[in-house]
Amino acid sequence: MEETTHSGEPLYLKVARLIEAQIQAGGLRVGDRIPSIRSFSRQQKVSVSTTLQAYFWLENRGYVEARNKSGFYVRVPLEDLAPEPKFRTADSGPAEVGVGDVLMKVMRAVAEPGMVPLGAACPAPALQPYHKLNRITRSIAHSDPFHSSYYQFPPGSELLRRQIARRSLEFGCSFSAADILITCGAMEALNLCLRAVAGPGDVIAIESPTYFGVLLAIEALGMKALEIPTHPRTGLNLDALESSIKKHRVKACIAMTNCQNPLGYIMGDEKKKALVDLLARRQIPLIEDDLSGDLAFDLERPKVAKAFDRNGMVLLCSSFSKVLAPGFRVGWVEAGRYRKEVERLKFLTTIATPSLPQLVVANFLESGGYDRHLRSLRLALNDQIQAMSKAIAKYFPSGTRLTRPAGGYLLWVELPKSVNALKLFRQAIAEKITIIPGGLFSASGHYQSHIRISCGYPWSDQIDRALVTLGKLCEEFAR
Amino acid sequence: MEETTHSGEPLYLKVARLIEAQIQAGGLRVGDRIPSIRSFSRQQKVSVSTTLQAYFWLENRGYVEARNKSGFYVRVPLEDLAPEPKFRTADSGPAEVGVGDVLMKVMRAVAEPGMVPLGAACPAPALQPYHKLNRITRSIAHSDPFHSSYYQFPPGSELLRRQIARRSLEFGCSFSAADILITCGAMEALNLCLRAVAGPGDVIAIESPTYFGVLLAIEALGMKALEIPTHPRTGLNLDALESSIKKHRVKACIAMTNCQNPLGYIMGDEKKKALVDLLARRQIPLIEDDLSGDLAFDLERPKVAKAFDRNGMVLLCSSFSKVLAPGFRVGWVEAGRYRKEVERLKFLTTIATPSLPQLVVANFLESGGYDRHLRSLRLALNDQIQAMSKAIAKYFPSGTRLTRPAGGYLLWVELPKSVNALKLFRQAIAEKITIIPGGLFSASGHYQSHIRISCGYPWSDQIDRALVTLGKLCEEFAR
Repeated sequence: MEETTHSGEPLYLKVARLIEAQIQAGGLRVGDRIPSIRSFSRQQKVSVSTTLQAYFWLENRGYVEARNKSGFYVRVPLEDLAPEPKFRTADSGPAEVGVGDVLMKVMRAVAEPGMVPLGAACPAPALQPYHKLNRITRSIAHSDPFHSSYYQFPPGSELLRRQIARRSLEFGCSFSAADILITCGAMEALNLCLRAVAGPGDVIAIESPTYFGVLLAIEALGMKALEIPTHPRTGLNLDALESSIKKHRVKACIAMTNCQNPLGYIMGDEKKKALVDLLARRQIPLIEDDLSGDLAFDLERPKVAKAFDRNGMVLLCSSFSKVLAPGFRVGWVEAGRYRKEVERLKFLTTIATPSLPQLVVANFLESGGYDRHLRSLRLALNDQIQAMSKAIAKYFPSGTRLTRPAGGYLLWVELPKSVNALKLFRQAIAEKITIIPGGLFSASGHYQSHIRISCGYPWSDQIDRALVTLGKLCEEFAR
Repeated sequence: MEETTHSGEPLYLKVARLIEAQIQAGGLRVGDRIPSIRSFSRQQKVSVSTTLQAYFWLENRGYVEARNKSGFYVRVPLEDLAPEPKFRTADSGPAEVGVGDVLMKVMRAVAEPGMVPLGAACPAPALQPYHKLNRITRSIAHSDPFHSSYYQFPPGSELLRRQIARRSLEFGCSFSAADILITCGAMEALNLCLRAVAGPGDVIAIESPTYFGVLLAIEALGMKALEIPTHPRTGLNLDALESSIKKHRVKACIAMTNCQNPLGYIMGDEKKKALVDLLARRQIPLIEDDLSGDLAFDLERPKVAKAFDRNGMVLLCSSFSKVLAPGFRVGWVEAGRYRKEVERLKFLTTIATPSLPQLVVANFLESGGYDRHLRSLRLALNDQIQAMSKAIAKYFPSGTRLTRPAGGYLLWVELPKSVNALKLFRQAIAEKITIIPGGLFSASGHYQSHIRISCGYPWSDQIDRALVTLGKLCEEFAR
């Protein structure tokens, strides 16, 4: 059990904030060594493991860095190198989406071999537990020869649904296997949910910026996207959401509450609850995309908004694509009061989810290696984000702004106004570098000088050179 | 090379028709032994293999039966036991579909363990090449450890697309790998095609009866189904289709031209061409579902309507579900001039098709075992259809009518008017027997006394007893 304070806050957080305050007040300066774990534990009368948690928290937030065997030191704050992106409050009305054509070009480029992979949003193959997944695959092909001889009709493999239900405690829910529907990735789940709660012409409130797949799905279903200003650290602006709801007939809201794509923020619990309550009061369903919630850098797995749902109005979508293997396409949805309708739609769009990937994931979860894998994956991704952030701050023109992701592997980069991100994308392709231009993340033409950079791959000379090249390309726009 | 006559007709067919004519004229009667293969070859001056092909054709059509080691005998024609279903010509207008609720109940029953499997449309596990598929699966998991570490972005695995393109010659096409898009089964392909060519409110012309998945997809997309009278042996009535097109603004047509579900007919080449031309003249795209074309009982693989497409107006959908492994969910589509739009829709609904099943199927096709597997599967399914047909003719009340499928594993049974198929379905479930009630195959309330029976499983005492039970249940309706 984790130590907590009277207020229910984890003790390590209270301890970490002591040091955070000292750094912010200037009592500890860049290059200072902070107390050793042992001496700090003694001094604060907390356990060594609590101090360790606190120091990791400080490290994850970029306050301190561990130097080999000599302890933790206060580091140059990233803020001094590159500030965070600006928060856009300007309001836009419901818009028809038109990002499809650009997107297909981007995707074709991303899939080409030999590119520096700063485009596609997934962890490097080497960070995936492919070895164990292959072992399980071989074992199932041997011991269960008829695994694919039947359709796994909706809701899908019971073994897998039981494992997901078991894990749901981690993010504040207590699902039973019967609540879960297995899908071909979170994208299918999201489409099914959209179709279950809204129809052509309906207005869907979304984060701005948001994952382009959401925009494409809304467009293809003949719905309209209503962009809600979204803060790069705290997420959806609830005041803006509320006033938008008053102005427009919003039929549903889509939000990625944890490790948002592209901003990387995690919405606080209070805010998640407020979001759920705000929408429930107006009978507006919330489609929550928790695709990367398991990749939060905090030691504690963040809750989902669904945890605060009392009316079955939240449809929670997720997937194992970003954590285990993108090519498995195993996702799931807990659709609350829309469960039956979503299940029906699943049947009539793909009949069933492929059996073997479901069974492999179920066995992986059952075998207990999931949490161990998550721990090392999160550490690696955090390292990669830190390394890429520093390099971007160093190589990109002044005026560049950078997010501080709380999890995942994505950086959202606001470039100087002179940079045309779509042109930059084309120039980068010519240099064999893939990035995603910011315009794809808006239905209303925003983010023309933004790019999304994936930090899914371990730091390397190749990536270093690619960022130098990108920086130079950006500089040229200013001339 | 197959021997052909001057008219281009296969020689075996000409030879077979000689005997067919004799049987029909009464020159050969029930129980008569037809000439031995050797003597008939000599007499007609054709090769032994041509005679063998002719005799198989006669056997497949129920004219003769092979008796162990003693040759071929004229058998009791099925016509005398149970006539074919009536051809309904009555016209119905465009209708909103409403079969969803019943369907989900049916599917849940079909998926329950311990049921006699006359419901779900797939071949028995024992008839699938699971052993070889598992061997390939293990081998890929070993030799290509990163098989699922990436997304197989649309259009999907090139290896698999090349294999499908290679096979396309068999059904009268000459696709290149670039023409093909891999999907999560034919059902996803069908949905993508529908969304590419039509929108909410549009009228889609369909066969009547037709596969309920088609009806559900049309319903869920807010489109309307226009049922076209369909003959149990020859398929869509083109005159009826033409006059319907004149009356209603038909936006697209869906047809299963080979081994139709549920009727089992194969449309002739002439008619396929006429269908394509009729629709092309009016710029109406044809979505062709060739899911079971490989299961035609004829020695020659029937062509697809797509083979006669000169304008890219035919979108051909297919899958390996019914031939290799339903749980793999590997389908594909050649979408003609709609290729780009269908590819875009694929991306935004499921991002990618799972990698491993694609690779396993590709390797299976490459290894060359596909045709051998098809031959034995088709023989088995034909046997099963014959056995089930005889049993139904024997056990079911007089007035029962039965299709004569030209391929696949489905029987469409027209029961006496007194039978309510939905009630029969419920009673059958209570007896642990699954069937599909006919109402599911219509958007306009037809086929209330019809059922679809799957002959995917080898004949057994259990199936025999199930058919006796079903026959008795039918009798009770007449009282």
